Amino acid sequence: MKILRSVADVRAWRASAGRVGLVPTMGALHAGHMSLVVRAVREADAAIASIFVNPTQFGPNEDYASYPRREAEDVALLEKHAAAAVFIPPVAEIYPPGDATRVTPGSIAAPLEGAARPGHFVGVATVVAKLFAIMRPDTAFFGQKDFQQLRVLQTMARDLRFGADIVGCPTVREPDGLALSSRNAYLTAEQRRDAVALSRGLFAAREIWTRGEREPGVLRHRVRELAGKDGVALEYVSVADPMTLAELDAPADTAVISLAARVGKARLIDNVLLGMDVADLR
Amino acid sequence: MKILRSVADVRAWRASAGRVGLVPTMGALHAGHMSLVVRAVREADAAIASIFVNPTQFGPNEDYASYPRREAEDVALLEKHAAAAVFIPPVAEIYPPGDATRVTPGSIAAPLEGAARPGHFVGVATVVAKLFAIMRPDTAFFGQKDFQQLRVLQTMARDLRFGADIVGCPTVREPDGLALSSRNAYLTAEQRRDAVALSRGLFAAREIWTRGEREPGVLRHRVRELAGKDGVALEYVSVADPMTLAELDAPADTAVISLAARVGKARLIDNVLLGMDVADLR
Repeated sequence: MKILRSVADVRAWRASAGRVGLVPTMGALHAGHMSLVVRAVREADAAIASIFVNPTQFGPNEDYASYPRREAEDVALLEKHAAAAVFIPPVAEIYPPGDATRVTPGSIAAPLEGAARPGHFVGVATVVAKLFAIMRPDTAFFGQKDFQQLRVLQTMARDLRFGADIVGCPTVREPDGLALSSRNAYLTAEQRRDAVALSRGLFAAREIWTRGEREPGVLRHRVRELAGKDGVALEYVSVADPMTLAELDAPADTAVISLAARVGKARLIDNVLLGMDVADLR
Repeated sequence: MKILRSVADVRAWRASAGRVGLVPTMGALHAGHMSLVVRAVREADAAIASIFVNPTQFGPNEDYASYPRREAEDVALLEKHAAAAVFIPPVAEIYPPGDATRVTPGSIAAPLEGAARPGHFVGVATVVAKLFAIMRPDTAFFGQKDFQQLRVLQTMARDLRFGADIVGCPTVREPDGLALSSRNAYLTAEQRRDAVALSRGLFAAREIWTRGEREPGVLRHRVRELAGKDGVALEYVSVADPMTLAELDAPADTAVISLAARVGKARLIDNVLLGMDVADLR
Protein backbone atom coordinates (compact mmCIF):
# COMPACT_ATOMS: atom_id res chain seq x y z
CA MET A 1 0.00 0.00 0.00
CA LYS A 2 1.31 3.41 -1.00
CA ILE A 3 1.54 6.05 1.70
CA LEU A 4 1.15 9.46 0.04
CA ARG A 5 1.87 12.63 1.99
CA SER A 6 1.83 15.43 -0.60
CA VAL A 7 -0.60 16.61 -3.26
CA ALA A 8 2.13 15.95 -5.82
CA ASP A 9 2.44 12.34 -4.57
CA VAL A 10 -1.30 11.86 -5.05
CA ARG A 11 -1.35 13.36 -8.54
CA ALA A 12 1.51 11.08 -9.61
CA TRP A 13 -0.25 8.03 -8.14
CA ARG A 14 -3.63 9.07 -9.60
CA ALA A 15 -2.36 9.23 -13.19
CA SER A 16 -2.25 5.43 -13.50
CA ALA A 17 -4.77 4.38 -10.84
CA GLY A 18 -7.74 3.79 -13.15
CA ARG A 19 -11.18 4.17 -11.54
CA VAL A 20 -10.60 5.42 -8.01
CA GLY A 21 -12.82 4.87 -4.97
CA LEU A 22 -12.12 7.32 -2.14
CA VAL A 23 -12.83 6.92 1.58
CA PRO A 24 -12.17 10.27 3.30
CA THR A 25 -11.60 9.86 7.05
CA MET A 26 -10.21 11.66 10.07
CA GLY A 27 -8.39 8.46 11.11
CA ALA A 28 -8.93 6.56 14.38
CA LEU A 29 -10.36 3.96 12.06
CA HIS A 30 -12.93 1.39 13.13
CA ALA A 31 -15.14 -1.23 11.50
CA GLY A 32 -17.46 1.50 10.16
CA HIS A 33 -14.61 2.96 8.12
CA MET A 34 -13.54 -0.52 7.07
CA SER A 35 -17.01 -1.22 5.65
CA LEU A 36 -16.43 1.78 3.37
CA VAL A 37 -12.97 0.57 2.38
CA VAL A 38 -14.37 -2.88 1.54
CA ARG A 39 -16.92 -1.21 -0.76
CA ALA A 40 -14.24 0.93 -2.41
CA VAL A 41 -11.97 -2.08 -2.95
CA ARG A 42 -14.83 -4.03 -4.47
CA GLU A 43 -16.23 -1.27 -6.70
CA ALA A 44 -13.17 0.59 -8.01
CA ASP A 45 -9.84 -0.27 -9.63
CA ALA A 46 -8.04 1.33 -6.71
CA ALA A 47 -9.28 2.17 -3.22
CA ILE A 48 -7.64 5.11 -1.49
CA ALA A 49 -8.38 6.41 1.99
CA SER A 50 -7.42 9.79 3.34
CA ILE A 51 -6.55 10.42 6.98
CA PHE A 52 -6.80 14.11 7.86
CA VAL A 53 -8.10 15.64 11.06
CA ASN A 54 -9.54 18.72 9.40
CA PRO A 55 -9.11 21.82 11.58
CA THR A 56 -11.75 23.92 9.78
CA GLN A 57 -14.63 21.63 10.70
CA PHE A 58 -14.00 21.96 14.45
CA GLY A 59 -15.39 24.86 16.47
CA PRO A 60 -13.14 26.77 18.88
CA ASN A 61 -14.38 24.80 21.91
CA GLU A 62 -14.49 21.40 20.21
CA ASP A 63 -12.12 18.45 20.30
CA TYR A 64 -9.67 19.20 17.46
CA ALA A 65 -6.62 18.93 19.74
CA SER A 66 -7.82 15.83 21.56
CA TYR A 67 -9.35 14.00 18.58
CA PRO A 68 -7.78 10.50 18.58
CA ARG A 69 -4.77 10.13 16.28
CA ARG A 70 -3.22 6.71 15.72
CA GLU A 71 -1.61 6.63 12.32
CA ALA A 72 0.35 3.39 12.62
CA GLU A 73 -2.73 1.35 13.59
CA ASP A 74 -4.80 3.06 10.88
CA VAL A 75 -2.24 2.29 8.18
CA ALA A 76 -2.05 -1.36 9.26
CA LEU A 77 -5.85 -1.65 9.19
CA LEU A 78 -6.09 -0.14 5.70
CA GLU A 79 -3.33 -2.41 4.40
CA LYS A 80 -5.09 -5.45 5.85
CA HIS A 81 -8.27 -4.44 3.98
CA ALA A 82 -6.44 -4.14 0.64
CA ALA A 83 -6.55 -0.38 0.15
CA ALA A 84 -4.21 0.57 -2.70
CA ALA A 85 -3.08 3.82 -1.08
CA VAL A 86 -3.59 6.20 1.80
CA PHE A 87 -3.20 9.99 1.70
CA ILE A 88 -1.95 11.43 5.01
CA PRO A 89 -1.19 15.10 4.36
CA PRO A 90 0.17 17.65 6.80
CA VAL A 91 -2.20 20.59 7.38
CA ALA A 92 -0.22 22.95 5.10
CA GLU A 93 -0.68 20.60 2.15
CA ILE A 94 -4.47 21.06 2.38
CA TYR A 95 -4.47 24.65 3.70
CA PRO A 96 -1.49 26.30 1.98
CA PRO A 97 -0.10 29.61 3.29
CA GLY A 98 -2.66 32.36 2.70
CA ASP A 99 -5.51 29.90 2.24
CA ALA A 100 -8.85 31.68 2.55
CA THR A 101 -11.24 30.17 -0.03
CA ARG A 102 -14.23 28.35 1.42
CA VAL A 103 -16.94 26.13 -0.03
CA THR A 104 -20.29 27.13 1.42
CA PRO A 105 -23.17 24.65 1.23
CA GLY A 106 -26.77 25.85 0.93
CA SER A 107 -29.77 25.48 3.24
CA ILE A 108 -29.24 21.74 3.66
CA ALA A 109 -26.39 22.62 6.01
CA ALA A 110 -28.42 25.03 8.16
CA PRO A 111 -30.35 22.82 10.65
CA LEU A 112 -29.22 20.07 13.06
CA GLU A 113 -25.42 19.76 13.08
CA GLY A 114 -25.15 23.00 11.11
CA ALA A 115 -27.09 24.84 13.82
CA ALA A 116 -25.30 23.07 16.68
CA ARG A 117 -21.82 23.53 15.19
CA PRO A 118 -21.59 26.89 13.35
CA GLY A 119 -19.15 26.68 10.44
CA HIS A 120 -18.84 22.90 10.70
CA PHE A 121 -20.24 22.12 7.27
CA VAL A 122 -18.29 24.90 5.58
CA GLY A 123 -15.19 23.13 6.91
CA VAL A 124 -16.47 19.74 5.77
CA ALA A 125 -17.51 20.92 2.29
CA THR A 126 -14.24 22.80 1.86
CA VAL A 127 -11.95 19.93 2.81
CA VAL A 128 -13.86 17.38 0.74
CA ALA A 129 -13.86 19.72 -2.28
CA LYS A 130 -10.09 19.96 -1.91
CA LEU A 131 -9.75 16.19 -1.61
CA PHE A 132 -11.90 15.77 -4.73
CA ALA A 133 -9.82 18.34 -6.66
CA ILE A 134 -6.63 16.54 -5.62
CA MET A 135 -7.77 12.92 -5.96
CA ARG A 136 -10.44 13.10 -8.66
CA PRO A 137 -12.30 10.05 -7.38
CA ASP A 138 -14.88 8.32 -9.52
CA THR A 139 -16.74 7.33 -6.36
CA ALA A 140 -16.49 8.43 -2.74
CA PHE A 141 -17.93 6.49 0.18
CA PHE A 142 -19.38 8.02 3.34
CA GLY A 143 -21.13 6.47 6.33
CA GLN A 144 -24.82 6.98 7.02
CA LYS A 145 -23.92 7.71 10.65
CA ASP A 146 -23.09 11.27 9.63
CA PHE A 147 -26.29 11.56 7.64
CA GLN A 148 -26.43 15.33 7.17
CA GLN A 149 -22.77 15.31 6.14
CA LEU A 150 -23.61 12.72 3.49
CA ARG A 151 -26.40 14.91 2.10
CA VAL A 152 -24.30 18.09 2.26
CA LEU A 153 -21.53 16.37 0.31
CA GLN A 154 -23.91 14.83 -2.22
CA THR A 155 -25.27 18.30 -3.00
CA MET A 156 -21.77 19.85 -2.97
CA ALA A 157 -20.43 17.27 -5.44
CA ARG A 158 -23.48 17.69 -7.67
CA ASP A 159 -23.42 21.51 -7.55
CA LEU A 160 -19.67 21.88 -8.13
CA ARG A 161 -19.87 19.29 -10.92
CA PHE A 162 -17.10 17.07 -9.59
CA GLY A 163 -18.45 14.06 -11.46
CA ALA A 164 -17.90 11.86 -8.40
CA ASP A 165 -20.63 9.50 -7.26
CA ILE A 166 -21.19 10.00 -3.51
CA VAL A 167 -22.32 6.71 -2.01
CA GLY A 168 -23.82 6.42 1.46
CA CYS A 169 -23.17 3.15 3.34
CA PRO A 170 -25.13 1.76 6.30
CA THR A 171 -24.05 2.61 9.84
CA VAL A 172 -22.04 -0.13 11.50
CA ARG A 173 -23.09 -0.80 15.11
CA GLU A 174 -21.86 -2.58 18.20
CA PRO A 175 -23.87 -5.71 19.10
CA ASP A 176 -25.96 -3.66 21.56
CA GLY A 177 -26.81 -1.05 18.90
CA LEU A 178 -24.34 1.78 19.62
CA ALA A 179 -23.18 3.32 16.34
CA LEU A 180 -19.43 3.02 15.83
CA SER A 181 -17.68 6.36 16.19
CA SER A 182 -14.11 7.39 16.82
CA ARG A 183 -15.52 9.56 19.61
CA ASN A 184 -16.80 6.48 21.51
CA ALA A 185 -13.20 6.31 22.74
CA TYR A 186 -14.02 9.27 25.02
CA LEU A 187 -16.59 7.21 26.99
CA THR A 188 -15.93 5.64 30.39
CA ALA A 189 -17.35 2.14 30.95
CA GLU A 190 -20.42 3.60 32.66
CA GLN A 191 -20.98 6.22 29.93
CA ARG A 192 -20.61 3.48 27.34
CA ARG A 193 -23.54 1.66 29.00
CA ASP A 194 -25.59 4.90 29.10
CA ALA A 195 -24.86 5.62 25.41
CA VAL A 196 -26.85 2.63 24.21
CA ALA A 197 -30.00 4.64 25.01
CA LEU A 198 -29.44 6.64 21.82
CA SER A 199 -29.83 3.74 19.40
CA ARG A 200 -32.57 2.25 21.60
CA GLY A 201 -34.60 5.43 21.16
CA LEU A 202 -34.06 5.48 17.40
CA PHE A 203 -34.90 1.78 17.05
CA ALA A 204 -38.08 2.23 19.11
CA ALA A 205 -39.21 5.00 16.75
CA ARG A 206 -38.36 2.79 13.76
CA GLU A 207 -40.44 0.03 15.34
CA ILE A 208 -43.60 2.18 15.54
CA TRP A 209 -42.90 3.53 11.98
CA THR A 210 -42.83 -0.09 10.78
CA ARG A 211 -46.22 -0.59 12.41
CA GLY A 212 -47.59 2.42 10.51
CA GLU A 213 -46.94 5.46 12.71
CA ARG A 214 -46.10 8.51 10.55
CA GLU A 215 -46.83 11.47 12.84
CA PRO A 216 -43.51 13.34 13.29
CA GLY A 217 -44.42 14.48 16.81
CA VAL A 218 -45.19 10.93 17.91
CA LEU A 219 -41.96 9.59 16.42
CA ARG A 220 -39.93 12.36 18.06
CA HIS A 221 -41.61 11.69 21.40
CA ARG A 222 -40.86 7.98 21.19
CA VAL A 223 -37.15 8.67 20.69
CA ARG A 224 -37.09 11.04 23.66
CA GLU A 225 -38.84 8.51 25.91
CA LEU A 226 -36.06 5.96 25.50
CA ALA A 227 -33.02 8.08 24.68
CA GLY A 228 -33.46 10.70 27.39
CA LYS A 229 -31.93 8.66 30.20
CA ASP A 230 -29.71 9.68 33.13
CA GLY A 231 -26.23 10.35 31.79
CA VAL A 232 -27.55 11.28 28.34
CA ALA A 233 -28.03 15.00 27.61
CA LEU A 234 -30.05 15.14 24.39
CA GLU A 235 -29.23 18.16 22.21
CA TYR A 236 -31.86 17.60 19.57
CA VAL A 237 -34.17 14.92 18.22
CA SER A 238 -35.24 15.60 14.63
CA VAL A 239 -37.69 14.01 12.22
CA ALA A 240 -36.77 15.45 8.84
CA ASP A 241 -37.03 15.02 5.09
CA PRO A 242 -34.03 12.88 4.04
CA MET A 243 -33.38 14.93 0.89
CA THR A 244 -33.56 18.46 2.34
CA LEU A 245 -33.14 17.85 6.11
CA ALA A 246 -36.12 20.17 6.59
CA GLU A 247 -38.03 19.25 9.75
CA LEU A 248 -41.26 17.38 9.01
CA ASP A 249 -44.46 18.85 10.40
CA ALA A 250 -46.77 16.31 8.79
CA PRO A 251 -46.68 12.59 7.96
CA ALA A 252 -44.42 11.68 5.00
CA ASP A 253 -43.38 8.55 3.11
CA THR A 254 -39.73 8.93 4.02
CA ALA A 255 -37.99 10.40 7.03
CA VAL A 256 -34.67 10.53 8.78
CA ILE A 257 -34.80 10.57 12.57
CA SER A 258 -31.58 11.93 13.95
CA LEU A 259 -30.27 13.02 17.31
CA ALA A 260 -27.28 14.49 19.03
CA ALA A 261 -26.44 14.04 22.68
CA ARG A 262 -23.69 14.56 25.21
CA VAL A 263 -22.60 11.50 27.08
CA GLY A 264 -19.74 12.43 29.39
CA LYS A 265 -17.10 14.24 27.33
CA ALA A 266 -18.39 12.79 24.06
CA ARG A 267 -20.85 14.50 21.75
CA LEU A 268 -22.49 11.63 19.84
CA ILE A 269 -24.86 11.59 16.86
CA ASP A 270 -26.93 8.82 15.33
CA ASN A 271 -29.90 8.37 13.00
CA VAL A 272 -32.27 5.95 11.33
CA LEU A 273 -33.54 6.35 7.79
CA LEU A 274 -37.15 5.30 7.24
CA GLY A 275 -39.05 4.50 4.06
CA MET A 276 -35.94 4.37 1.90
CA ASP A 277 -32.46 2.92 1.71
CA VAL A 278 -29.32 5.02 2.12
CA ALA A 279 -28.04 3.53 -1.16
CA ASP A 280 -30.92 5.24 -2.97
CA LEU A 281 -29.73 8.72 -2.02
CA ARG A 282 -27.67 10.54 -4.62
CA MET B 1 -13.75 22.30 -33.67
CA LYS B 2 -16.02 20.39 -31.28
CA ILE B 3 -19.03 22.23 -29.89
CA LEU B 4 -19.83 20.75 -26.48
CA ARG B 5 -23.07 21.64 -24.69
CA SER B 6 -23.27 19.24 -21.75
CA VAL B 7 -20.98 18.27 -18.89
CA ALA B 8 -21.10 14.71 -20.19
CA ASP B 9 -19.92 15.93 -23.62
CA VAL B 10 -16.96 17.66 -21.99
CA ARG B 11 -15.99 14.65 -19.88
CA ALA B 12 -16.03 12.41 -22.96
CA TRP B 13 -13.94 14.93 -24.92
CA ARG B 14 -11.56 15.49 -21.99
CA ALA B 15 -10.64 11.81 -21.62
CA SER B 16 -8.45 11.87 -24.74
CA ALA B 17 -7.56 15.58 -24.98
CA GLY B 18 -4.10 15.40 -23.37
CA ARG B 19 -2.88 18.60 -21.73
CA VAL B 20 -5.76 21.06 -21.84
CA GLY B 21 -5.55 24.86 -21.91
CA LEU B 22 -8.82 26.56 -20.94
CA VAL B 23 -10.03 30.05 -21.81
CA PRO B 24 -13.21 30.77 -19.80
CA THR B 25 -15.26 33.59 -21.36
CA MET B 26 -18.72 35.12 -21.33
CA GLY B 27 -18.67 35.29 -25.14
CA ALA B 28 -18.90 38.47 -27.25
CA LEU B 29 -15.33 37.61 -28.08
CA HIS B 30 -12.77 40.18 -29.15
CA ALA B 31 -9.03 40.33 -29.78
CA GLY B 32 -8.36 40.25 -26.03
CA HIS B 33 -9.99 36.84 -25.76
CA MET B 34 -8.21 35.72 -28.91
CA SER B 35 -4.82 36.55 -27.38
CA LEU B 36 -5.72 34.05 -24.63
CA VAL B 37 -6.81 31.42 -27.16
CA VAL B 38 -3.56 31.86 -29.08
CA ARG B 39 -1.63 31.21 -25.85
CA ALA B 40 -3.74 28.15 -25.04
CA VAL B 41 -3.27 26.73 -28.55
CA ARG B 42 0.47 27.28 -28.31
CA GLU B 43 0.99 25.94 -24.79
CA ALA B 44 -1.38 22.96 -24.50
CA ASP B 45 -2.26 19.86 -26.52
CA ALA B 46 -5.82 21.10 -26.84
CA ALA B 47 -7.25 24.59 -26.36
CA ILE B 48 -10.85 24.81 -25.19
CA ALA B 49 -12.87 27.96 -24.60
CA SER B 50 -16.08 28.20 -22.64
CA ILE B 51 -18.86 30.64 -23.45
CA PHE B 52 -21.20 31.15 -20.51
CA VAL B 53 -22.83 34.37 -19.36
CA ASN B 54 -22.76 33.50 -15.67
CA PRO B 55 -25.88 34.74 -13.88
CA THR B 56 -24.41 34.52 -10.36
CA GLN B 57 -21.71 37.12 -11.00
CA PHE B 58 -24.20 39.83 -11.97
CA GLY B 59 -25.93 41.99 -9.37
CA PRO B 60 -29.71 42.52 -9.52
CA ASN B 61 -29.35 45.92 -11.26
CA GLU B 62 -26.53 44.90 -13.59
CA ASP B 63 -26.48 43.96 -17.26
CA TYR B 64 -27.06 40.18 -17.21
CA ALA B 65 -30.07 40.38 -19.54
CA SER B 66 -28.48 42.85 -21.94
CA TYR B 67 -24.94 41.43 -21.93
CA PRO B 68 -24.02 40.89 -25.60
CA ARG B 69 -24.61 37.35 -26.86
CA ARG B 70 -23.43 36.37 -30.34
CA GLU B 71 -22.69 32.66 -30.40
CA ALA B 72 -22.33 32.16 -34.14
CA GLU B 73 -19.67 34.86 -34.50
CA ASP B 74 -17.88 33.62 -31.36
CA VAL B 75 -17.75 30.05 -32.64
CA ALA B 76 -16.38 31.19 -36.01
CA LEU B 77 -13.70 33.27 -34.31
CA LEU B 78 -12.61 30.38 -32.07
CA GLU B 79 -12.49 28.01 -35.03
CA LYS B 80 -10.37 30.50 -36.98
CA HIS B 81 -7.90 30.62 -34.09
CA ALA B 82 -7.56 26.82 -33.96
CA ALA B 83 -9.35 26.10 -30.68
CA ALA B 84 -9.96 22.35 -30.39
CA ALA B 85 -13.33 22.72 -28.70
CA VAL B 86 -15.80 25.15 -27.17
CA PHE B 87 -18.12 24.47 -24.23
CA ILE B 88 -21.43 26.35 -24.48
CA PRO B 89 -23.64 25.03 -21.69
CA PRO B 90 -27.20 26.03 -20.89
CA VAL B 91 -27.58 27.54 -17.40
CA ALA B 92 -29.04 24.32 -15.90
CA GLU B 93 -25.91 22.39 -16.88
CA ILE B 94 -23.81 24.64 -14.62
CA TYR B 95 -26.49 25.37 -11.99
CA PRO B 96 -28.49 22.13 -11.72
CA PRO B 97 -31.89 22.11 -10.02
CA GLY B 98 -31.46 22.79 -6.31
CA ASP B 99 -27.98 24.23 -6.77
CA ALA B 100 -26.94 26.17 -3.67
CA THR B 101 -23.21 25.53 -3.06
CA ARG B 102 -20.98 28.58 -3.41
CA VAL B 103 -17.23 29.11 -3.50
CA THR B 104 -16.34 32.08 -1.30
CA PRO B 105 -12.98 33.77 -1.84
CA GLY B 106 -11.15 35.42 1.06
CA SER B 107 -10.13 39.02 1.72
CA ILE B 108 -8.60 39.45 -1.73
CA ALA B 109 -12.18 39.71 -3.04
CA ALA B 110 -13.27 42.38 -0.54
CA PRO B 111 -12.04 45.72 -1.98
CA LEU B 112 -12.46 47.35 -5.42
CA GLU B 113 -14.80 45.28 -7.61
CA GLY B 114 -15.77 43.19 -4.60
CA ALA B 115 -16.92 46.32 -2.76
CA ALA B 116 -18.57 47.85 -5.84
CA ARG B 117 -20.33 44.63 -6.85
CA PRO B 118 -21.44 42.65 -3.76
CA GLY B 119 -21.43 38.92 -4.48
CA HIS B 120 -19.66 39.34 -7.81
CA PHE B 121 -16.54 37.36 -6.89
CA VAL B 122 -18.52 34.61 -5.18
CA GLY B 123 -20.24 34.16 -8.55
CA VAL B 124 -16.93 34.27 -10.41
CA ALA B 125 -15.13 31.86 -8.06
CA THR B 126 -18.11 29.49 -8.07
CA VAL B 127 -18.49 29.29 -11.84
CA VAL B 128 -14.76 28.90 -12.46
CA ALA B 129 -14.52 26.18 -9.78
CA LYS B 130 -17.34 24.36 -11.58
CA LEU B 131 -15.59 24.78 -14.94
CA PHE B 132 -12.36 23.46 -13.43
CA ALA B 133 -14.16 20.45 -11.90
CA ILE B 134 -15.78 19.71 -15.27
CA MET B 135 -12.85 20.42 -17.60
CA ARG B 136 -9.82 19.65 -15.41
CA PRO B 137 -7.56 22.06 -17.30
CA ASP B 138 -3.81 21.91 -16.88
CA THR B 139 -3.65 25.65 -17.54
CA ALA B 140 -6.29 28.38 -17.64
CA PHE B 141 -5.74 31.79 -19.22
CA PHE B 142 -7.26 35.06 -17.98
CA GLY B 143 -6.77 38.65 -19.11
CA GLN B 144 -4.97 41.22 -16.98
CA LYS B 145 -7.82 43.65 -17.72
CA ASP B 146 -9.84 41.98 -14.96
CA PHE B 147 -6.89 42.10 -12.60
CA GLN B 148 -8.65 41.41 -9.30
CA GLN B 149 -10.53 38.54 -10.93
CA LEU B 150 -7.18 37.06 -11.99
CA ARG B 151 -5.86 37.25 -8.42
CA VAL B 152 -9.10 35.91 -6.92
CA LEU B 153 -8.95 32.93 -9.27
CA GLN B 154 -5.25 32.31 -8.70
CA THR B 155 -5.90 32.09 -4.96
CA MET B 156 -9.07 30.02 -5.47
CA ALA B 157 -7.26 27.48 -7.68
CA ARG B 158 -4.35 27.30 -5.22
CA ASP B 159 -6.59 26.97 -2.14
CA LEU B 160 -8.95 24.37 -3.60
CA ARG B 161 -5.93 22.45 -4.94
CA PHE B 162 -7.19 22.21 -8.52
CA GLY B 163 -3.68 21.74 -9.86
CA ALA B 164 -4.39 24.16 -12.72
CA ASP B 165 -1.85 26.85 -13.54
CA ILE B 166 -3.69 30.21 -13.74
CA VAL B 167 -1.87 32.41 -16.25
CA GLY B 168 -2.49 36.14 -16.59
CA CYS B 169 -2.05 37.64 -20.07
CA PRO B 170 -1.49 41.31 -20.93
CA THR B 171 -4.48 43.54 -21.65
CA VAL B 172 -5.12 44.06 -25.36
CA ARG B 173 -5.89 47.68 -26.25
CA GLU B 174 -7.27 49.73 -29.11
CA PRO B 175 -4.66 51.90 -30.89
CA ASP B 176 -5.67 54.89 -28.73
CA GLY B 177 -5.23 52.92 -25.50
CA LEU B 178 -8.81 51.86 -24.60
CA ALA B 179 -8.76 48.36 -23.11
CA LEU B 180 -10.79 45.89 -25.16
CA SER B 181 -13.99 44.85 -23.39
CA SER B 182 -17.23 43.28 -24.51
CA ARG B 183 -18.93 46.16 -22.68
CA ASN B 184 -17.35 48.73 -25.03
CA ALA B 185 -20.23 47.77 -27.33
CA TYR B 186 -22.50 49.82 -25.02
CA LEU B 187 -20.65 53.07 -25.88
CA THR B 188 -21.94 55.67 -28.35
CA ALA B 189 -19.34 57.27 -30.65
CA GLU B 190 -19.02 60.25 -28.30
CA GLN B 191 -18.73 58.06 -25.20
CA ARG B 192 -16.12 55.99 -27.00
CA ARG B 193 -14.02 59.17 -27.40
CA ASP B 194 -14.55 60.04 -23.71
CA ALA B 195 -13.55 56.54 -22.58
CA VAL B 196 -9.95 56.95 -23.74
CA ALA B 197 -9.42 59.17 -20.68
CA LEU B 198 -9.29 56.01 -18.52
CA SER B 199 -6.18 54.54 -20.12
CA ARG B 200 -4.67 58.02 -20.48
CA GLY B 201 -4.90 58.48 -16.72
CA LEU B 202 -3.36 55.08 -16.04
CA PHE B 203 -0.57 55.62 -18.58
CA ALA B 204 0.23 59.03 -17.08
CA ALA B 205 0.63 57.42 -13.65
CA ARG B 206 2.82 54.72 -15.18
CA GLU B 207 4.91 57.45 -16.76
CA ILE B 208 5.69 59.16 -13.43
CA TRP B 209 6.28 55.72 -11.83
CA THR B 210 8.88 55.04 -14.54
CA ARG B 211 10.57 58.30 -13.63
CA GLY B 212 10.75 57.21 -9.97
CA GLU B 213 7.49 58.37 -8.35
CA ARG B 214 6.35 55.84 -5.72
CA GLU B 215 4.01 57.85 -3.48
CA PRO B 216 0.55 56.17 -3.73
CA GLY B 217 -1.29 59.46 -3.20
CA VAL B 218 0.63 61.15 -6.00
CA LEU B 219 0.02 58.24 -8.39
CA ARG B 220 -3.68 58.20 -7.53
CA HIS B 221 -3.92 61.95 -8.05
CA ARG B 222 -2.22 61.72 -11.44
CA VAL B 223 -4.79 59.18 -12.65
CA ARG B 224 -7.66 61.35 -11.44
CA GLU B 225 -6.24 64.44 -13.19
CA LEU B 226 -6.43 62.80 -16.61
CA ALA B 227 -9.21 60.22 -16.21
CA GLY B 228 -11.75 62.47 -14.50
CA LYS B 229 -13.06 64.11 -17.68
CA ASP B 230 -16.55 65.18 -18.69
CA GLY B 231 -18.55 62.08 -19.56
CA VAL B 232 -16.44 59.87 -17.26
CA ALA B 233 -17.82 59.20 -13.78
CA LEU B 234 -14.94 57.65 -11.84
CA GLU B 235 -16.07 55.11 -9.24
CA TYR B 236 -12.67 54.45 -7.71
CA VAL B 237 -8.98 54.88 -8.40
CA SER B 238 -6.84 52.46 -6.41
CA VAL B 239 -3.11 51.98 -5.89
CA ALA B 240 -2.78 48.55 -4.34
CA ASP B 241 -0.48 45.64 -3.64
CA PRO B 242 -0.71 43.31 -6.68
CA MET B 243 -0.68 40.14 -4.54
CA THR B 244 -3.27 41.10 -1.91
CA LEU B 245 -5.12 44.04 -3.54
CA ALA B 246 -4.70 45.86 -0.20
CA GLU B 247 -4.55 49.63 -0.77
CA LEU B 248 -1.00 51.00 -0.49
CA ASP B 249 -0.43 53.79 2.01
CA ALA B 250 3.33 53.97 1.49
CA PRO B 251 5.77 53.60 -1.42
CA ALA B 252 6.31 50.01 -2.59
CA ASP B 253 8.33 48.19 -5.24
CA THR B 254 5.25 46.86 -7.01
CA ALA B 255 1.75 48.23 -7.45
CA VAL B 256 -1.39 47.80 -9.46
CA ILE B 257 -3.26 50.99 -10.28
CA SER B 258 -6.84 50.21 -11.13
CA LEU B 259 -10.00 52.14 -11.74
CA ALA B 260 -13.67 51.74 -12.47
CA ALA B 261 -15.83 54.33 -14.18
CA ARG B 262 -19.20 54.82 -15.76
CA VAL B 263 -19.16 56.08 -19.32
CA GLY B 264 -22.73 56.30 -20.58
CA LYS B 265 -24.42 52.97 -19.91
CA ALA B 266 -21.11 51.12 -19.66
CA ARG B 267 -19.28 50.41 -16.43
CA LEU B 268 -15.62 50.03 -17.47
CA ILE B 269 -12.54 48.89 -15.56
CA ASP B 270 -8.85 49.07 -16.42
CA ASN B 271 -5.46 48.84 -14.70
CA VAL B 272 -1.70 49.02 -15.09
CA LEU B 273 0.71 46.77 -13.24
CA LEU B 274 3.94 48.43 -12.10
CA GLY B 275 7.26 46.93 -11.04
CA MET B 276 6.39 43.44 -12.18
CA ASP B 277 4.99 41.50 -15.12
CA VAL B 278 1.55 39.89 -15.08
CA ALA B 279 3.21 36.63 -16.17
CA ASP B 280 5.08 36.54 -12.84
CA LEU B 281 1.86 36.32 -10.82
CA ARG B 282 0.84 32.84 -9.76
